[in-house]
Amino acid sequence: MPADDVLTMGRTGVDLYPQQSGVSLREVRAFSKFLGGSPTNVAVAAARYGRRTAIVTRTGDDPFGAYVHDALRGFGVDDRYVSAVPGLPTPVTFCELFPPDDFPLYFYRHPKAPDLEIAAAELDLDAVRGAAILWVTGTGLCQEPSRTATLTALRERARSGITVLDLDYRPMFWESREEARHWVREALPYASVAVGNLDECRTAVGTGEPRRAAAALHDLGVELAVIKRGPDGVLASRGGEEAEAPPLAVDVVNGLGAGDAFGGALCHGLLAGWDLGRILRFGNAAGALVASRLACADAMPTEDEVRELLTSGRRP
Amino acid sequence: MPADDVLTMGRTGVDLYPQQSGVSLREVRAFSKFLGGSPTNVAVAAARYGRRTAIVTRTGDDPFGAYVHDALRGFGVDDRYVSAVPGLPTPVTFCELFPPDDFPLYFYRHPKAPDLEIAAAELDLDAVRGAAILWVTGTGLCQEPSRTATLTALRERARSGITVLDLDYRPMFWESREEARHWVREALPYASVAVGNLDECRTAVGTGEPRRAAAALHDLGVELAVIKRGPDGVLASRGGEEAEAPPLAVDVVNGLGAGDAFGGALCHGLLAGWDLGRILRFGNAAGALVASRLACADAMPTEDEVRELLTSGRRP
Repeated sequence: MPADDVLTMGRTGVDLYPQQSGVSLREVRAFSKFLGGSPTNVAVAAARYGRRTAIVTRTGDDPFGAYVHDALRGFGVDDRYVSAVPGLPTPVTFCELFPPDDFPLYFYRHPKAPDLEIAAAELDLDAVRGAAILWVTGTGLCQEPSRTATLTALRERARSGITVLDLDYRPMFWESREEARHWVREALPYASVAVGNLDECRTAVGTGEPRRAAAALHDLGVELAVIKRGPDGVLASRGGEEAEAPPLAVDVVNGLGAGDAFGGALCHGLLAGWDLGRILRFGNAAGALVASRLACADAMPTEDEVRELLTSGRRP
Repeated sequence: MPADDVLTMGRTGVDLYPQQSGVSLREVRAFSKFLGGSPTNVAVAAARYGRRTAIVTRTGDDPFGAYVHDALRGFGVDDRYVSAVPGLPTPVTFCELFPPDDFPLYFYRHPKAPDLEIAAAELDLDAVRGAAILWVTGTGLCQEPSRTATLTALRERARSGITVLDLDYRPMFWESREEARHWVREALPYASVAVGNLDECRTAVGTGEPRRAAAALHDLGVELAVIKRGPDGVLASRGGEEAEAPPLAVDVVNGLGAGDAFGGALCHGLLAGWDLGRILRFGNAAGALVASRLACADAMPTEDEVRELLTSGRRP
């Protein structure tokens, strides 16, 4: 098998998103089923741009788990590294839609999410080493054996190729922010790229001030730091070079998944060798398209759709 | 407050039922949200017949929990004994629709269902003693503190009024069938009425042969034994009297909830002093109506609807 362009690791599951907007789960009457989980979405996003993509994750041994396989394959993501964990249900995640900026999540990931049962011994280390981009997340560090598996994958890369750590900090998955910080800092020296929003930077390096956070990430060995500043747009810094891109104004339906769309675009742009400004503009446009749609994975745009938004300002 | 006609105890939550029939959760595209949980459904069913009804249960401290309150009130069920358990999510239950007789359930009740946190110390013992009918379930016995709360409620009744034990055996909630048997037999001496299908009789009294099961239940002190024999219809036995009623033929949409519709009708008929044959025919018709509809609690019929099916053979 040829090496993957993009290999992601971590969370997967079923997203159940409301068919009604602006109301709480108390009032929602019906839900649509989508593929979800941040590194799952990133893999789908990269696959939409034609990249050879796979994900290392685990599901329950149940019909929702079978759906995850179906959906991944349907989006062109290789599911060979997706296995079932007997006895643990495939996680489901509900959200509420309060556009433009409030999308609370309700996770059903008990007693334990199968994707936290990814084990180092089961990793295909050739695939881990061979992928042009490895994409791992902070959430993958929150419990064993996923934590050791994630760190093992990072160490195996030995800083070759592009290794992305999505700082992805979700308080409900951790005992404390300090615990998250400890393990993210354990992982950062192996990452050539770090991506996070201001709160995730606070967790990782103790500051939410974008340029200081970027500097702190560089000090830990990160070559490219990408800081998502919400309404202030994205900031990227690499080797003394800096780029910024403002967010695109769209009618937001569901802001969830926009960051993952950016992530998929980041992978695509890095592989294509684009300059930082172009990557950020493309990623922002991809994120804006996903934010204008209900789903996450299922809403990832094609390259043509992103280009159309960038050139004409019109959503396809 | 006047005493309740029917006070149920136990399971509650959100049912997410597929908008597509005949396919697995792998293929379902969307779900509708309903109120669910067996004793919740029974309470709603009894309330539809104008009975003063309340439920003792617990939810998560979350929007789905608020929905449980809204829905109960909307159906005329008193929610004063419904409290929230911080830190535990309101359970969600998915089903698959393979009519006419296969409706697999997928429970998301981890780390623990709030309704298993019903505690004896928090019971309103006046309400428990005062209700004309108390309805408890085998599932309420599967974990502490709900087990002790259920047994406490049963003992408080001191065999006054009508005390129903729904044998309700769901293997996934128990370590073993033997453990379930142990606790159901602990509860049975306090029940004046026992209701169960053949498998539940096997769990409770070690035999699935209807008349032997009824006799064994009587030996344990049960006055009225109601045995659901599936396609062979319902058998009831009380004080040497026996009645049977065949199932009604309907186009089944979702068989789940039919038993709870029967339960609500049983409460209604017992309170009205109907003879056994009339109760069974009415209960079967109520069950058939619910089976012909997608929802459970939300599908409970009115007395007029049941009468219309019984007299004209037509579904309203």
